[in-house]
Amino acid sequence: MPSLTFDRAFLTNLLSTLTDRGRDLLRGLTQSAAPRIADGELAELGQTLLSRRGEATGVALAQALLAGYEVATPEQRLAFLEALAEMFGPESEAIERAIETIRADGMTPAAVSALHDAAEPRRQELIRRLNLAPGGTAALVRMREELLGHVSEHPLLRAVDNDFVHLFVSWFNRGFLVLQRIDWTTPANILEKIIRYEAVHAIQNWDDLRSRLAPPDRRCYGFFHPRLVDEPLIFVEVALTKEIPAAIAPLLDPDRVPIDPQQATTAVFYSISNTQRGLNGISFGNFLIKQVVEDLKRELPNLTTFVTLSPVPGFAAWLARQRADEASPVLDPADKDVLSVLDQPGWTDDPATVDKIKPIMLAAAAFYFLEAKDKRGRVADPVARFHLGNGARLEKLDYLGDTSGKGLKQSYGLMVNYCYDLDDIESNHEAFVEKGIIAASTAVRKALRTRVAGAA
Amino acid sequence: MPSLTFDRAFLTNLLSTLTDRGRDLLRGLTQSAAPRIADGELAELGQTLLSRRGEATGVALAQALLAGYEVATPEQRLAFLEALAEMFGPESEAIERAIETIRADGMTPAAVSALHDAAEPRRQELIRRLNLAPGGTAALVRMREELLGHVSEHPLLRAVDNDFVHLFVSWFNRGFLVLQRIDWTTPANILEKIIRYEAVHAIQNWDDLRSRLAPPDRRCYGFFHPRLVDEPLIFVEVALTKEIPAAIAPLLDPDRVPIDPQQATTAVFYSISNTQRGLNGISFGNFLIKQVVEDLKRELPNLTTFVTLSPVPGFAAWLARQRADEASPVLDPADKDVLSVLDQPGWTDDPATVDKIKPIMLAAAAFYFLEAKDKRGRVADPVARFHLGNGARLEKLDYLGDTSGKGLKQSYGLMVNYCYDLDDIESNHEAFVEKGIIAASTAVRKALRTRVAGAA
Amino acid sequence: MPSLTFDRAFLTNLLSTLTDRGRDLLRGLTQSAAPRIADGELAELGQTLLSRRGEATGVALAQALLAGYEVATPEQRLAFLEALAEMFGPESEAIERAIETIRADGMTPAAVSALHDAAEPRRQELIRRLNLAPGGTAALVRMREELLGHVSEHPLLRAVDNDFVHLFVSWFNRGFLVLQRIDWTTPANILEKIIRYEAVHAIQNWDDLRSRLAPPDRRCYGFFHPRLVDEPLIFVEVALTKEIPAAIAPLLDPDRVPIDPQQATTAVFYSISNTQRGLNGISFGNFLIKQVVEDLKRELPNLTTFVTLSPVPGFAAWLARQRADEASPVLDPADKDVLSVLDQPGWTDDPATVDKIKPIMLAAAAFYFLEAKDKRGRVADPVARFHLGNGARLEKLDYLGDTSGKGLKQSYGLMVNYCYDLDDIESNHEAFVEKGIIAASTAVRKALRTRVAGAA
Amino acid sequence: MPSLTFDRAFLTNLLSTLTDRGRDLLRGLTQSAAPRIADGELAELGQTLLSRRGEATGVALAQALLAGYEVATPEQRLAFLEALAEMFGPESEAIERAIETIRADGMTPAAVSALHDAAEPRRQELIRRLNLAPGGTAALVRMREELLGHVSEHPLLRAVDNDFVHLFVSWFNRGFLVLQRIDWTTPANILEKIIRYEAVHAIQNWDDLRSRLAPPDRRCYGFFHPRLVDEPLIFVEVALTKEIPAAIAPLLDPDRVPIDPQQATTAVFYSISNTQRGLNGISFGNFLIKQVVEDLKRELPNLTTFVTLSPVPGFAAWLARQRADEASPVLDPADKDVLSVLDQPGWTDDPATVDKIKPIMLAAAAFYFLEAKDKRGRVADPVARFHLGNGARLEKLDYLGDTSGKGLKQSYGLMVNYCYDLDDIESNHEAFVEKGIIAASTAVRKALRTRVAGAA
Repeated sequence: MPSLTFDRAFLTNLLSTLTDRGRDLLRGLTQSAAPRIADGELAELGQTLLSRRGEATGVALAQALLAGYEVATPEQRLAFLEALAEMFGPESEAIERAIETIRADGMTPAAVSALHDAAEPRRQELIRRLNLAPGGTAALVRMREELLGHVSEHPLLRAVDNDFVHLFVSWFNRGFLVLQRIDWTTPANILEKIIRYEAVHAIQNWDDLRSRLAPPDRRCYGFFHPRLVDEPLIFVEVALTKEIPAAIAPLLDPDRVPIDPQQATTAVFYSISNTQRGLNGISFGNFLIKQVVEDLKRELPNLTTFVTLSPVPGFAAWLARQRADEASPVLDPADKDVLSVLDQPGWTDDPATVDKIKPIMLAAAAFYFLEAKDKRGRVADPVARFHLGNGARLEKLDYLGDTSGKGLKQSYGLMVNYCYDLDDIESNHEAFVEKGIIAASTAVRKALRTRVAGAA
Repeated sequence: MPSLTFDRAFLTNLLSTLTDRGRDLLRGLTQSAAPRIADGELAELGQTLLSRRGEATGVALAQALLAGYEVATPEQRLAFLEALAEMFGPESEAIERAIETIRADGMTPAAVSALHDAAEPRRQELIRRLNLAPGGTAALVRMREELLGHVSEHPLLRAVDNDFVHLFVSWFNRGFLVLQRIDWTTPANILEKIIRYEAVHAIQNWDDLRSRLAPPDRRCYGFFHPRLVDEPLIFVEVALTKEIPAAIAPLLDPDRVPIDPQQATTAVFYSISNTQRGLNGISFGNFLIKQVVEDLKRELPNLTTFVTLSPVPGFAAWLARQRADEASPVLDPADKDVLSVLDQPGWTDDPATVDKIKPIMLAAAAFYFLEAKDKRGRVADPVARFHLGNGARLEKLDYLGDTSGKGLKQSYGLMVNYCYDLDDIESNHEAFVEKGIIAASTAVRKALRTRVAGAA
Repeated sequence: MPSLTFDRAFLTNLLSTLTDRGRDLLRGLTQSAAPRIADGELAELGQTLLSRRGEATGVALAQALLAGYEVATPEQRLAFLEALAEMFGPESEAIERAIETIRADGMTPAAVSALHDAAEPRRQELIRRLNLAPGGTAALVRMREELLGHVSEHPLLRAVDNDFVHLFVSWFNRGFLVLQRIDWTTPANILEKIIRYEAVHAIQNWDDLRSRLAPPDRRCYGFFHPRLVDEPLIFVEVALTKEIPAAIAPLLDPDRVPIDPQQATTAVFYSISNTQRGLNGISFGNFLIKQVVEDLKRELPNLTTFVTLSPVPGFAAWLARQRADEASPVLDPADKDVLSVLDQPGWTDDPATVDKIKPIMLAAAAFYFLEAKDKRGRVADPVARFHLGNGARLEKLDYLGDTSGKGLKQSYGLMVNYCYDLDDIESNHEAFVEKGIIAASTAVRKALRTRVAGAA
Repeated sequence: MPSLTFDRAFLTNLLSTLTDRGRDLLRGLTQSAAPRIADGELAELGQTLLSRRGEATGVALAQALLAGYEVATPEQRLAFLEALAEMFGPESEAIERAIETIRADGMTPAAVSALHDAAEPRRQELIRRLNLAPGGTAALVRMREELLGHVSEHPLLRAVDNDFVHLFVSWFNRGFLVLQRIDWTTPANILEKIIRYEAVHAIQNWDDLRSRLAPPDRRCYGFFHPRLVDEPLIFVEVALTKEIPAAIAPLLDPDRVPIDPQQATTAVFYSISNTQRGLNGISFGNFLIKQVVEDLKRELPNLTTFVTLSPVPGFAAWLARQRADEASPVLDPADKDVLSVLDQPGWTDDPATVDKIKPIMLAAAAFYFLEAKDKRGRVADPVARFHLGNGARLEKLDYLGDTSGKGLKQSYGLMVNYCYDLDDIESNHEAFVEKGIIAASTAVRKALRTRVAGAA
């Protein structure tokens, strides 16, 4: 079969013949051969799609455009995304006219509505129409993933991204998400995605996965969306324990002996992973954790404590800056001297060193969480921002909680527990969002105060 | 338990304590007692909901507002809808500012985006947030149903309705709809809705329903939406036959002998019903019929003909006007004379009369379908508009196809068959939508020509 | 299509061509035409089936025999059942040989095994092979239902029935039964069977059914079997209440206000119905009630009391005999005098009469339950035998608990509550089964003692 | 918690208190501690279980016995199995009495029935009652697996095994088996069993499994049983191809390019594995293949050829015997000379050698399949017996079809294709089972004839 050009003839033919059965044809073409599309074809298809009123033709055209995008070269794809920015923006003349009308007649509902319509970038409607194609939602999520890779070099694409976000927020609203438990009876095609997407503590292989899903004291839950049926959008891994853990290694030990879940008092959220880069910025984690807490409470009434065991991704870099900062508010020269051993590999092997560093690091960590801000004035640590923003409380600092290479590198092994207490979650959340107040346990606050006192 | 005022104290309390568990509390209140809300409370809740940034509090507030709406008096509800029109429109000052910016700096992306945001009625965001409450989508569909009842007397509400439509089109887009077969193994809670919603040929009782669903030569399909799980949004009833039927009674006869579906050549869509008045104007029927045609073809390859057996709701009224119109292009005085018997009950009982009327009525019907227009210049018959707009072809006129009281009243018993031919459906649709060309069989066209010739 | 004789030619043809696709052919023949079989054909098919070693041919022959049975005349069917008794019994000669071997060599395992094989009626193997046909189990259950109708007039068939029971006990053992909740979301094809099979308090129509299944304080559960998927074998209807009920009418009142199931303390089993006459004597009720009690306790921990509200089907007849018995141990002449009003319709309308009869009837009822025996020396009341045999306790006598025509006729309105207390159920059951001890509440025992004292 | 003796006190307690809730207790004991049972306890439990009439107590006792068996030592288990043989056989005295009755009164139905009952080993009823425990069926299948390991050294156990087989044939009859497709969306807990149980061409790991299940031109089907829900009893792996394959390696090649299943003409059954050693001798394969053929034909009407690609496990040993046999009917001295190279590893690497051996080996193979018999006079090859017994036809000999180590060892690389042709399957099966006639293609027969001619 000769390679195929996605040319005008094809397009014309498509328009004249595409019934729904055309899907199969179209799919066949794109799968079994090596079709090509001409430069500019995609944008042209987009224009045609926007100009048609008929729904059925619209679906066929949407399919054709998405199929064409799939087989396009990287350059053609980028060109199409740029066309979205440049050719599918708002309609200037219509805006002008609407403004004139308002100038003339005042802000009548009709005039404002016309203004609103005119100011809406035409690509929003285009994206909506593309979404009607079978598989359209998944294709658009992938398209945005690609778009995000170009934004920093092509700032014009930022506006396109805004429109994607606007629509995705609507299509992926909480009401559409379905919580499902993921365990060892879950279909393999979903489980292989858990292996692939786990972002916090990598899953080595199927045996490792099994040891996280199959034991009676382990749980995993994910949010699914009706249009992306085989894809968990986000998932959380949970360990049921008898106390708040202080380190990750014992939780992941494949040889540990499971406990009876009826005996557990504590649910530990030790890993939360988003899976779709194309859904960046559409947040699900907040809803996920709260619903899992509620479901677990129902299933296991003996559970009284819901905590995370979380990484501290920004700590090592921040501490390095403090050590280099003569005016550090948290480290004095003596501290810095002690901490200089951190630059030597293997410092964790010497118990005396480990003991000496501990109080200094914990005090610094308390400061990092309670006082440090990033350039935009926000709480410095991104994971802390997420959990505090959800209404959790900073509960405990876990010195050397993660001594893996990654753990030592990003936080000198520091981990923390955030506690989700349903009675306080709303007020914590409000206080944090509205006033920036950080909920923290007495122990954490004391680590800060002690240190400041000691430094005095 | 004393009746409860949905007052500020309650609201305050709500805001400070509402976790997700609050749902249960809230549900309890609204179900088991007779809570009341104060005048203006709903709009105030709306303002609060829009002003909050926290997602979780937002869900609780959305629940509270919808629960309050549920228990409000009819007057309070209308007042809330009017508040949506008046208090939750676009922000005039922001529009002014955006226009100023454009005047000063030109149409930069940022300026146009700000303009677009400002011109969006604030109720759109409010409705989006209400949709996040559990059961929110269903509650909003009911709210719009109520809204539609007020629009003609309160024209301001038209703008509110536009926003509902804008959002519903997005939430109920084709991609979210799930086709499901409905048969005698379908859960009873869904079947009772089929009984309730059947709009074309009323279902008398469960035995009648059984006779439409259980026989091997009957099918029924509906579209379902993930957020309205027990509600078919639209459904179609299908009879499998050996020829194109000319009347409805034999299809519904409870004593008929079913045929083997493998022997059937024809699928007859004899009833299509939308179920949610609150989704008026969001069209699903087009997609439904086409997908059912495809599914049936796959299941029963022997099926070659897909037709409707449809009512002609506007025909009797139109014919009455023709009879009264001296300049009628379709009826001459002799015709009118013959037709005068139509005013007498029981005219269908006399075979001679029936025979005499037939050619005149069929010729008038051909004219009605092919030439008559409504005030807006559209094809006169609403059912014809639907099927022709879907790409169907007007296939056959069925004289006295429905001699029930309802049938005689709306169309003097006339029914028609529209034919769905997958090979022509796209081109018919395009021709109809873009140029107003009506696809009709030779037989129907001939009925028109013959008559015109005869009249000459 | 000419009517078809199920003759030898057909049979021969069948044997030579029947692959699994033959099923369709066969099904077609038996459904769409009016095939006949010759006298003796069924028994002959049975012989052939037993003589074949091939599994696949066996399935086809089993299908043919069952299909033939389906279309046979009543006389042919009876003749086949009699053939089962006479021609498919044990093999006498083989028994003789086996006995000879034992006489010669003693009871070696091989000899005893040969004896066992020889003594097994050949119809057992025949029934096992019939069971391999698609739909075989259902067909055999129907066959036994028919068989039971003939047993009293054809005592030879008793042996055939024994073999059916032997096999059914194995195929329908508890391990295969699946408990499923039946509610208003259950498929209609199953619900219509609930209407049809309800044996205790007839269900009038779908509205009545709905009022028993849909309210939040109602439950229904049934046992299903993997080979009879659409048929509940037995089901129980449950009302959730705040106290032990004393009458059936309030439970079935369509206008009653449901209670919140979380508020209920008591689960009332007010109707238990077996559905398959062909499974008579294979008992499921015991397991059903106990599993439902366990499931309800898990779902609603607030439930503390599990009782029935049961009819007393043998009471009226027994009381009539006591009234006629001069030596009645429970009624003295004065009692009989009072009770004479029972013969007059409408006695329940006069409050004074009702009051006067009450103590006499309750004392008689206590005697009936605690002392009366049937001819085989068993507890007289069949429903009592069932529940006491299950380990329940006779809890309360409900005077005029069922004033429907049926209730008055069978028990002068008397109902009773049996209590299922999981802590006592095993010991009650053992005591009843092994020693005939009846578990009864103090109140019931007192009704007996009081009366005896009063009579002295 | 101290280790626990499963002693009389426990047993007594069990009997007096075991309600269904006792299950949990019991399960808890056996899982979380290290309970022990006394010698002889199991047999005693068995006696008690048989002596009880109560169903509920029976279930509890059955659970106790199976739980006790689970924790027993290997010696105790064997002792229990031997007790089944010795203490739970038929009742000699009852047999004597029954024989006496027959001698006296002749073979009345009652007498024969009593004889049958007496001759039935009591362990049959014991096993039936054990089957009522939750998980009983699975436990009994494991028990028989263990039993099979002892039979050769303890011939008395053969009788126990016969009873297991008798009951398993009934419980695992075709009617209860459910065919399910196994693919990459199947739950992982089932897939890991596919990996473990694959007996023909070992599955290396999850990637290998994926390459057999996920591609569009691969299928896998298994039979499941309602009481062993997570266990496929048998499964078959299928490749869809465009021709009958001659070697296994290309089918399993992970890098092969899948074909469109709509293009396939041939379904190749390349692996069939039984999974439960405890179900040895209960045959499912026959039904499985035929049902899969039917299902595939329905799904993919373009499939016209259904063949296996099968190993020849007995060929190498048989050929070795022929080479050593001076009177071999199939190898003459020259042949033997050529074949002597087979003893040298790597003979397949030399094309000339490979060519020279081919005609000799194929002729020998034709003889092996068509003429060779085992000691019991059956077709020599066990795989051939299975497929020919199912009605398949020996279609093609595949020289060097499997050059893996295992393939070379068991058959010098020879594989064969058996063809399942639905039109001939019944008659082939009958001819083979009743008369020993082997269905073989002309090509295979010709390989035999040619050689014989050549040898002459």
